[in-house]
Amino acid sequence: MTERLSAEARRQALGELPGWTEAQGREAIGKTFVFKDFNEAFGFMTRAALVAEKMDHHPEWRNVYKTVEVVLSTHDAGGVTALDIELAKAMNAIAKLTPG
Amino acid sequence: MTERLSAEARRQALGELPGWTEAQGREAIGKTFVFKDFNEAFGFMTRAALVAEKMDHHPEWRNVYKTVEVVLSTHDAGGVTALDIELAKAMNAIAKLTPG
Repeated sequence: MTERLSAEARRQALGELPGWTEAQGREAIGKTFVFKDFNEAFGFMTRAALVAEKMDHHPEWRNVYKTVEVVLSTHDAGGVTALDIELAKAMNAIAKLTPG
Repeated sequence: MTERLSAEARRQALGELPGWTEAQGREAIGKTFVFKDFNEAFGFMTRAALVAEKMDHHPEWRNVYKTVEVVLSTHDAGGVTALDIELAKAMNAIAKLTPG
C-alpha cells in the first residue's frame, strides 16, 4: 500500500486527478485550492483533516484566507504512494461538495 | 484599531508575546507552534480559526503534522496592527490550553 510509485505510475495517477501536478524540486504532488472565503477554505481543511487522521496520512498545507496550498508525499517511502493519491482524490471530492 | 504599529510599539508588544518574533524580510510577526500530534495541531487550528473568523482577521499558516507555523500581518495597513497582537495573544492562550 505504501510502496513508492514509479514516475510512470505517478503521471498516470495525476492524469486522473484534476488540478494536481508534480511538486517542484521534490518527489511529491501538489494542488492549490481556491475557495470563496475563509469559511469555505477552513471548512474544506476540517473535512480533509478528518479523512487524513483516519488514514493516518497527513498533508503539508498552507492556508491564506480563501486559498489552501497542499503538498502530498509519503515520508517513509521517500516519494508519492497510493496513500497520497487516495488523499488527493478525497480532497478533490470534498472541494467539489463545497458550494460556490 | 487597525493602525500600523511603529517598530517600537511592535517590539514592546512582542515582549509580552512568548514565542513570537519579527518575521524575516517583511513587516509581520510569526511563531511556530509544536504540538504532540496532528490531532492537537489541528485542534489548535480549529479553535484559532473560530477566533480569527469572529475577528474577521485571518492568519497565514502552514501545518505539517504536529507543527503549525503562523505569520500575522494586516494587509490593509501594510504591517502589524493591534489586530495581529490580539490574534497572537489568543493563539498563545489556545495553545496553553492544549494538554501535552
